[in-house]
Amino acid sequence: MDKNVKKDLKEQFMNTSRIETLADGIFAIAMTLLVLTLEVPNFPDPVTNTTIFNFLISTIPQFFVYGMSFVLLAVFWRINHREFNRIEKSDGILLRITIIWLMFVVLVPFSTSLIGDYGNLQVPELFFHFNMFIIGILAFITWYYAVNWGLTSFKWTKKAYKRSFFGYLIFPVLAVLAMLLTFITPSYSSLAYLGIFFFESMGDRLIGEE
Amino acid sequence: MDKNVKKDLKEQFMNTSRIETLADGIFAIAMTLLVLTLEVPNFPDPVTNTTIFNFLISTIPQFFVYGMSFVLLAVFWRINHREFNRIEKSDGILLRITIIWLMFVVLVPFSTSLIGDYGNLQVPELFFHFNMFIIGILAFITWYYAVNWGLTSFKWTKKAYKRSFFGYLIFPVLAVLAMLLTFITPSYSSLAYLGIFFFESMGDRLIGEE
Amino acid sequence: MDKNVKKDLKEQFMNTSRIETLADGIFAIAMTLLVLTLEVPNFPDPVTNTTIFNFLISTIPQFFVYGMSFVLLAVFWRINHREFNRIEKSDGILLRITIIWLMFVVLVPFSTSLIGDYGNLQVPELFFHFNMFIIGILAFITWYYAVNWGLTSFKWTKKAYKRSFFGYLIFPVLAVLAMLLTFITPSYSSLAYLGIFFFESMGDRLIGEE
Amino acid sequence: MDKNVKKDLKEQFMNTSRIETLADGIFAIAMTLLVLTLEVPNFPDPVTNTTIFNFLISTIPQFFVYGMSFVLLAVFWRINHREFNRIEKSDGILLRITIIWLMFVVLVPFSTSLIGDYGNLQVPELFFHFNMFIIGILAFITWYYAVNWGLTSFKWTKKAYKRSFFGYLIFPVLAVLAMLLTFITPSYSSLAYLGIFFFESMGDRLIGEE
Repeated sequence: MDKNVKKDLKEQFMNTSRIETLADGIFAIAMTLLVLTLEVPNFPDPVTNTTIFNFLISTIPQFFVYGMSFVLLAVFWRINHREFNRIEKSDGILLRITIIWLMFVVLVPFSTSLIGDYGNLQVPELFFHFNMFIIGILAFITWYYAVNWGLTSFKWTKKAYKRSFFGYLIFPVLAVLAMLLTFITPSYSSLAYLGIFFFESMGDRLIGEE
Repeated sequence: MDKNVKKDLKEQFMNTSRIETLADGIFAIAMTLLVLTLEVPNFPDPVTNTTIFNFLISTIPQFFVYGMSFVLLAVFWRINHREFNRIEKSDGILLRITIIWLMFVVLVPFSTSLIGDYGNLQVPELFFHFNMFIIGILAFITWYYAVNWGLTSFKWTKKAYKRSFFGYLIFPVLAVLAMLLTFITPSYSSLAYLGIFFFESMGDRLIGEE
Repeated sequence: MDKNVKKDLKEQFMNTSRIETLADGIFAIAMTLLVLTLEVPNFPDPVTNTTIFNFLISTIPQFFVYGMSFVLLAVFWRINHREFNRIEKSDGILLRITIIWLMFVVLVPFSTSLIGDYGNLQVPELFFHFNMFIIGILAFITWYYAVNWGLTSFKWTKKAYKRSFFGYLIFPVLAVLAMLLTFITPSYSSLAYLGIFFFESMGDRLIGEE
Repeated sequence: MDKNVKKDLKEQFMNTSRIETLADGIFAIAMTLLVLTLEVPNFPDPVTNTTIFNFLISTIPQFFVYGMSFVLLAVFWRINHREFNRIEKSDGILLRITIIWLMFVVLVPFSTSLIGDYGNLQVPELFFHFNMFIIGILAFITWYYAVNWGLTSFKWTKKAYKRSFFGYLIFPVLAVLAMLLTFITPSYSSLAYLGIFFFESMGDRLIGEE
């Protein structure tokens, strides 16, 4: 094995730009696919303004669910955005965590479709919140791994890192809260995610900048 | 909290490049999804040239609707293009407005499908025009916010800014006009958007360059 | 109107990078949507290896059609690639031609679906070839406009330009040929496009490099 | 023909950046389309938690298949990533191989849907593994061609290249193994792909870095 090959082997740590491109693409598509949750049915004749109006009114819960998932995906995209701004290089394990993370991101249109149709039941809501929990916890794991394996781009104090870890745990905790809420009221369990906006407005602590 | 973290906190204003990538992706997908409005049905046997010809002829209104939505999305994409050329940095609020804006952009294939199937009725047309109105007004709000919070990249006179604000209001006004037109003729209410081309040819005033 | 605004107005000619991003996105999606032409039906029980085998055999024409459309879209993408490598700046008209061009690119999955299901008839094939013709002729118009309005990045002799124009006309001519072939044999009319590979191997004359 | 044109002709070898953008887009979409394999059916009333629970349990094989295809596509994307990091320039033939390769990448959602629905049968599994084989062998051919036509960016020893060729053959060999396994047990034939992780953990030999 000659020198060049060895040098190449050492360049194991690749930069993160192409992972980000893939992630951006997947997010853009998953966010757009959400709209396929909404479908215009073939109404039996005669179709009047009342038919369409009633259809639109009855679709309001789906609009709500669609909007919520869109915003949640945007939140995840933003978290990813920040993370990779601070992660300078990547290795095989980080890439794998990211791939698994994206796998659950791509599942969101399915989960959304499930609660769009059967959001009054507990099982679909539990499934949706579990999906959110996995996404949240994987974002935490990504950051935890990157920090401890020296893939981040700057040096923080131990205390600052500890705080950032807490920041990343806010979302998974909210997902657990939502899961618990399904035992009381499935339909309104997603309200737990409103906590994000509360924490975000507290200085973007959620993503660990404090 | 150490110095590096504080410095990082101050870098709150992120550059806009990754938002633009997400927006470009979402636009590309929404524009392509429009074609799913058009579907080839399973005709009962025997299928002849006449069957297909009649199907294509009867699909002409859908082609028209699909083409119009495609062009309108392209207009919005162009407006976004120009805006972000002039917006140098972004903050959390600008990002949030953009996310909500994209949420309504992604809704366009649904609205298009609605008027593609039931464009002769007032309610679907009102829904479509309202969708357009929200998109237009959010583009205005984005620009208004960016200007007043100092996120733009150059200094204009107050008068120039005022003019640019009027430019951004042209599209929402056309959408309102279209909504009013649905009371007279739903099927032709979209003709109001032809006003864009009139205003655009007057020196791209629409997007506030005057 | 102050100086800065005027200067901005003169920067009417924008660079082409973001148009290319949109075009790349649209091509990637249109090419991937082609696969939705292929669908796995719900076979009635009992489903055996023979059922699936017969289904796959009967799908061969669709595979062929899907592969052909994929390659044709790749050819268009490549033509666009070359064109915009040579077009340095863009103006409103070039942007508009490109948008209309993309509108017909996005229509390809629909046309493909039409000939995938009813490729033995003349009308669907005529529709498909007409779609190809429009795409081809718009690529020619883009180049013709860019050359004559001074948007290209280098100076060729008049003769070289004339040759390049002929190069861009090869594809539309093949589409016309395919349309004529539908009068003899609809099913095999697409064979006309094989001409591309012949012309391409003659030194990439198609895209006007000769 | 003047000098400029000739010079342009010599710039036949284009850089690979835009091919990579197209490939990234296609991968992102194909990976996201996989989720369309999963669909929420319209259950007959009354829909209870048990209905949804049973549906989710019965969908576990599809989840597994979807996850596996997602990971395999991610592996291919990574292989492509590495290849094009080392391929400095591209020519017409490399572009064509890549296009054909992408054609089979885009086919993966269809193959996945086939084994998601009928994974207990041999024919669907053979089809899926054959799809994987073609993708794997085309990645090998891409690399083989790039090396032998001097499109790579650095000089390795002959021995190093030979090793890299063996690395690229691991995936196609696993696909052949999976095909053979279908004769014994169709349902578990995909387990052959677990070999990737074994070989990858042995120092990323798969993609020829050894």
